[in-house]
Formats: sequence, structure tokens, C-alpha cells
Amino acid sequence: MSNKQIPYKIYIEESEMPKAWYNLRADMINKPAPLLDPQTHKPMSAADLSGVFCDELIQQELDETKAYYEIPEEIRSFYKMYRPSPLVRAYCLEEKLGTPAKIYYKFEGNNTSGSHKLNSAIAQAYYAKKQGLVGVTTETGAGQWGTALSMACSYFGLDCKVYMVKCSYEQKPHRREVMRTYGASVTPSPSMETAVGRKILAEHPDTVGSLGCAISEAVEKATSMEGYRYVLGSVLNQVMLHQSVIGLETKIALDKYGITPDVIIGCAGGGSNLGGLIAPFMGEKIRGERDYRIIAVEPESCPSFTRGNYAYDYCDTGMVCPLAKMYTLGSSFMPAATHAGGLRYHGMNSTLSQLYADGLMEATTVKQTEVFAAAEEFARIEGILPAPESSHAIKVALDIAKECCKTGEEKTIVFGLTGTGYFDMMSYEKFHNGVMKDYRPEDAEIEKALSKLPKI
Amino acid sequence: MSNKQIPYKIYIEESEMPKAWYNLRADMINKPAPLLDPQTHKPMSAADLSGVFCDELIQQELDETKAYYEIPEEIRSFYKMYRPSPLVRAYCLEEKLGTPAKIYYKFEGNNTSGSHKLNSAIAQAYYAKKQGLVGVTTETGAGQWGTALSMACSYFGLDCKVYMVKCSYEQKPHRREVMRTYGASVTPSPSMETAVGRKILAEHPDTVGSLGCAISEAVEKATSMEGYRYVLGSVLNQVMLHQSVIGLETKIALDKYGITPDVIIGCAGGGSNLGGLIAPFMGEKIRGERDYRIIAVEPESCPSFTRGNYAYDYCDTGMVCPLAKMYTLGSSFMPAATHAGGLRYHGMNSTLSQLYADGLMEATTVKQTEVFAAAEEFARIEGILPAPESSHAIKVALDIAKECCKTGEEKTIVFGLTGTGYFDMMSYEKFHNGVMKDYRPEDAEIEKALSKLPKI
Repeated sequence: MSNKQIPYKIYIEESEMPKAWYNLRADMINKPAPLLDPQTHKPMSAADLSGVFCDELIQQELDETKAYYEIPEEIRSFYKMYRPSPLVRAYCLEEKLGTPAKIYYKFEGNNTSGSHKLNSAIAQAYYAKKQGLVGVTTETGAGQWGTALSMACSYFGLDCKVYMVKCSYEQKPHRREVMRTYGASVTPSPSMETAVGRKILAEHPDTVGSLGCAISEAVEKATSMEGYRYVLGSVLNQVMLHQSVIGLETKIALDKYGITPDVIIGCAGGGSNLGGLIAPFMGEKIRGERDYRIIAVEPESCPSFTRGNYAYDYCDTGMVCPLAKMYTLGSSFMPAATHAGGLRYHGMNSTLSQLYADGLMEATTVKQTEVFAAAEEFARIEGILPAPESSHAIKVALDIAKECCKTGEEKTIVFGLTGTGYFDMMSYEKFHNGVMKDYRPEDAEIEKALSKLPKI
Repeated sequence: MSNKQIPYKIYIEESEMPKAWYNLRADMINKPAPLLDPQTHKPMSAADLSGVFCDELIQQELDETKAYYEIPEEIRSFYKMYRPSPLVRAYCLEEKLGTPAKIYYKFEGNNTSGSHKLNSAIAQAYYAKKQGLVGVTTETGAGQWGTALSMACSYFGLDCKVYMVKCSYEQKPHRREVMRTYGASVTPSPSMETAVGRKILAEHPDTVGSLGCAISEAVEKATSMEGYRYVLGSVLNQVMLHQSVIGLETKIALDKYGITPDVIIGCAGGGSNLGGLIAPFMGEKIRGERDYRIIAVEPESCPSFTRGNYAYDYCDTGMVCPLAKMYTLGSSFMPAATHAGGLRYHGMNSTLSQLYADGLMEATTVKQTEVFAAAEEFARIEGILPAPESSHAIKVALDIAKECCKTGEEKTIVFGLTGTGYFDMMSYEKFHNGVMKDYRPEDAEIEKALSKLPKI
């Protein structure tokens, strides 16, 4: 097919939008390890989890066999307000780079939450409402998830309490106001509102917070209030299930034009966007139908895949959540204060961890300043100002496209552009002013955190 | 056609995108009055304007006869990176309001500049580059235009100097960083960099600035530097020409589904988005082919249509620009410091002014706090967090839709949702905290500014 017959932005029709989410675990040969009770170390049952999570979400969390989950009509209606998201052919970028590579990105930033997070937020709010709950609690790092959940809760008339990692809360006061616009309450974490927050503050009064800590606070709050449950924006398999809508739409769009990617790239924090993007492609790879090179990109300052252990660990700093087997830096690991934006979680989704352990995907790390340089390069050519998180994927996509200039290979690259950076301008300012720092944790720092892994 | 056969978002195909801009003046019976030289009060020729503006843009500015201008291929390529913009059917809003009205909005916020401004910015940068210029200067109020121009200049490798109204500069430091990301320099206005800025500061040391003042500075800078010209994001007819892409796409999308609007609503500051949105519809109305109710919505605090004079006035505070015949509050009028966001220009595009004088469109004002209430209501239902400017149109659209609940009329409403409010969270915060003020200028205040109109 000649180049320009493929539009700049491939939008699938509403009628072509996925009607079911895809549960990759159903096709995996080696299933991800089960969640364990943090006290007894026995596999968690649905009943064990029901005080914390919504019932239908627990079922989705535990199910390793059902390949497709029908997307409820109410969620599909909401999706139609901001989806399908465009699969963009980066013609301008290709031209400026002079690369023979063909670059596509799935852009999830065209909604007010500014990222893909809304895909799971609306699903989780829906199931909470369906269960007759009053509200939900959650944590947020960069603020994208909290915004997404606020929007979703506002749509279904649910109360929404957000614990926001303190450094983000302070760096991003505007994020708080967006959440308030949607009616949510926002508390910087660690806070004095919860026992676990008070304990962490007593031990580390100057902490800038972490996702693991905010999770502990949100879980404590949810379990101590009638009619509330806890919801999480990444890491869990239910979230990856909902995010499969990204990959499914991408695949439908590519198939329409007979395009087969060689490389698929996503940034990896807790893993949900990456897991969602790659799900249908990985399914084909596992089933032996097609092969793809799949790359997870993580920050040098929080390298769970590349420098963590594959082991059971606590999902939260307060050690109240179930244990998950995952690539982890240890639940006490805190990324350096110089680290900007998200991708600061100590562990990785258990499904992706198993896939990585099985050699079905690669992982790589990138330096923060290189990420912002790639972000700026991309913005100036393709127009979109990317989130720092998304820019990890951009960095690696640019590297591969530039490599193709040398080798002459016409690789087809697909990467996930998960969101926009409008609320990250303080980090961009540091980059512009030349005061942004890179940070590579010392081996001893990681070893210390890993030494506290539970013995299982 | 049954309700749901119309998708939530009507995207026209790339192949259906407009290939030419529409120059509404060609179809007008009473043409807008010509620009006059601020010294001699004689009509400006292309030669008179060539020191300030780019040559091809001058031609577009002065041309009242040619109905269609082909959009150059380079601009169409850029458009394809973020256009077509969606025409959204607000099903969720209709349902929550319980209105029989059918509500559509053309959403121009899905690009990094966050608004429709990019449509003209890329055109103006293109013609500047084609003319072999080094760079351009401009002013920006809310920051949307400055961002758009920065993006466009970065794309074509032009230098970009932005004078930003001081109160916006201070309220929106993040806007500055977005512009810097695209390589622009940003100066708060009034500044000490220009003679006019120094004069204004000497007279009003505490001024929060105004668009008129920033324009004067940008013009002075452009005319004092080799290889630079001045570009403007609104008010001018060339801008309205480029913005006709909004209305043309809207019309193509509506026609695809056989939809005829009853009411078309846009917010009005300098008039470019409104003029662009209504252009093809107004053309039909003038030619007697169809009738539409067309409503301009302006802020109570800056009511040029509804409380201004239709007279020749200076386009800028420094009185260095050509005179335009327009609805104006007087070039010395400054909106109150409590006024949030854009729509703070003292005058109105001369084409729209003539249409309004001829009774072809209506105008109305809305209170600031009501605008933010409408913005929040809209955000919670339709997801999108709107810019304060756009929310003026939302307010009136909601009012009409709610009125339809009482009358049972199935009106088809189309409004322009010009942009997103991500950089306006400080204003939202004031609204949330109940400290936002409304402001209606006293008659005496407007009379004082009008008393300084040039005698022509």
C-alpha cells in the first residue's frame, strides 16, 4: 500500500469499537502467580478480597480462563464520548528524521484526564455503582489516575476520595483543582488521616510520599467506611483487562490497513497501559500466530523489570494489601525526589512479570534527561506535548527509528502515547533550565529494599 | 433518522477535509469597512501594511471578493496531524438535562495549544516562512494563541517572540513553559523592551496589561527588527478566513447526516472562532438559502457587541495599528482584573461587526460565575474540562436546551467548544472556593473609554 493511502490518523468507526475486553491470561501457558494473603501467605479467594474491592472486579482479577469480558453498555456509551482514540501515523516525524521506519502511536491523551487511565476508571466506577456503593477511595501519583477516577465517579454519582503522592500534590496544585471540578476530595499522602499515614510520617517526617504509601492510606480509608471500596489505577490484572481496549482498537485499526508491527513499545510503571496495548499482540505471539518484538521502557530511577527480583512482595508500603509475585524493587523502595512524574511504583503487574520471566518481552531503562529531550523533539515535530511517562516510549521509538536510518530497515514501530504533559510543565521547566537531574539507584539501595521482601 | 444512528463523534474522513478556506466577505452585501491609516485616516493599501504583516496575509486581509482560498498542501499536512476535529453529539448531556433539544459541539481542544488558534497559527507561520522571514512577533492573552503560534513556528523553523498579557503571564507560568518547549521567547506585557511598553508602564505602573497593549509591543518589535513581521491570533479578517475550516468541517459533518442546526452559538472575544464557525452557515443565510439563529456570547465584563459603539477605533492601546470599524469599547478600555481568561479584547472583528449591524446575528452577555457553573456542569457530564472562553457558549447552549425542556421544542443546537481549561485551574479554584467575582462595567467607565474614539 502506498504511503499516503494510510491516513494521518486512523479512527475506527464506533460500530467497530471493541465490544469485549480481552483477558490475556486466558491464553497464557504459564499463568501469573496468584495473589497471597499478607498474613497467612495462602492464595486469596474472592471472599478474602471482598472487603477491599468491588465484587465484579474481584472476579475479573482472579479469572485466568475467560478470554473475553463483554463491555457493559453503560461503559461503552462513556467510551464513545472520548474513544476510539486515534492511531496516528507519524508522517511528520518520519520525514524530519529521514527514517525508512514507519512510526505509529496510539494516542490516549485526548480526554480531560489526559491519559489512558479513564479506560479503567469508568469500568471500576461502573461496577462500584452497580454494587450499590456510596463511593470509592484511591491513590494517585502524577495525578492522571485521580483525575480519571474523579471524572468517572462524577458521571455515575459516586463519592471519590483521592490520596495523592505528596510531591505530586505540591508540584501540581492544578491537578487538585481538576479533581475538585469533578467533585472529588484530594488529600496529600502520607497524611494524618490514616493510621498508616501517621506511622509513615512518624518514621519519615520529610518523605515526599510514594504510590505504595498512598495505596495503604486509601485501602485503610475504604475498609474503615461503610459503603466504600478501594480502586486502583494500575498494577492489577483487572486494570490490564480494561486497558486491553487500547490494544484491541490498535489492532483493529492496523488490520484495516493491513499493517503488521515489527516492534511494539510502551512505558512501564505499574504496567497497565503497556499490558493493555500489547494484549492482543501478545496473545497472537503466545498462540504462535505471529511474532512481535515487545519492549517495556522504564525509568532509570525506578527499574523494577531490569534490576528488581521476580518474587512475592507487598503491593503497598503499609503491607496491608495482598502479596503479588512480580518484578519488584521491594515495597520500601522510594524513587529519588528528582524523579519527575509517574512510573514510580516499586513493582510490576504480575501478568507482565510472568511474560517477561518467560522471555516473551524485553525491558530497557532510559535516563530522565534523555526522556525530556525526546519529549521536546517529539512535541516540536508532531505537535503533541507528551506526558513524561509516555515520553519513555517515545525515547525508545525514536532510537529505533534513527537506527533504521543507518540500517535502512523499514521497520514498523507502534508505541503507546499514553497522555499529555500539560500538568508537568514544572518538570519541563527544570529541563529547559538545565537543572534536571538523572538518577540511577545504587546497587546497595536496591539490595536494602529487596532484603525486606517477605520470605515465601 | 433515529437518534443513535448518529455517532457520538462525527469525524469526517481526511479525504473530505476542506481543501479551501471560505471568505465570507465575498458573499456579503454590505462589506466590512476598510482599515484606515491611523495618521491620515485613508484606507490602507497592501503597500501600507507590508512593513507590519506578511505579504500574502495582507492580500487575504484586504480581499472582499474571492470566495475560496486554496489551503496550501503544507498546511493541509499539518492540519491532518490534529484535524478533522470531532463534531460531538452531546448524548450524555441531553439525557442528563432531559431535553428534547439535540446538542452538538465542534471540539477544537484536541491539540496541544488547547484551542482552535492553531488553525490560523500554522497558516500565518507558513506564509511568513514562504516569504523568507526569520521570525514573527505576537501577543497572547490567555496563552492559547501564543502556544499555537509557538507550535507552528517550531514546525516551520521560525523564531517566535510572544508578548503575554501580564496578568495571564503571572497566573499561568505553565503556559510559558509550553511555549518554551516549542522554542519561543515569552515576555510579560507591558514590558520595558519597547517604547510603547515603557510609556504604558510610566502611566500605569500597576497595570495587569491588556491585549491591546501587548499588540502594540509586538508590532513595535516586529517593525524594528530585520526579517520579522507581526502576526495576530484574532480580530483580523485573515484569521477569520483560516478559522473558516471550523465551520466548513462542521457543515460537512452535519450534511453527512442530514442535520440542520436551528441555533449556532459561539463565544466572542476578537471574533475569530465565532466567525470561523458560522462562516458557511452565514453565507447560506446571506444568500437566502437557509435561515439560522446565530448567537455571539461575550463576557459581561467586556461587552463590545452589546454595549460598545460601531465606530472606527484603534486596534491597539498604543494606537500604532490601522483603524478598524468595529463594535468597540474604546482602545483604552481594560477589563477588570477579576475577569478570568480571554475574551478581553476591546473590539470585535470588522466582518462580524458588519453582520451584527445588519441584524444577521444576535449577541448576548453572561456573568463570569454563571459561566464557570456551566463549565463545571458540562465537565461532569460530557467529560471535557472546557476553557473559560468556550464556557460562555456552553452557558447559552445549556440555557436554550433547558428552555426546550419547558417548551418541548426539539431544537438542534450547535456550539463551538473552542478549547480546554487545563491552564485555567487557578480561575476554577477561585470558583470552587466561592471567591470568584462578577463584574459589570459602569456606564461611565465605558463612556470614558468611548470618548477617546478617533474622530472620523
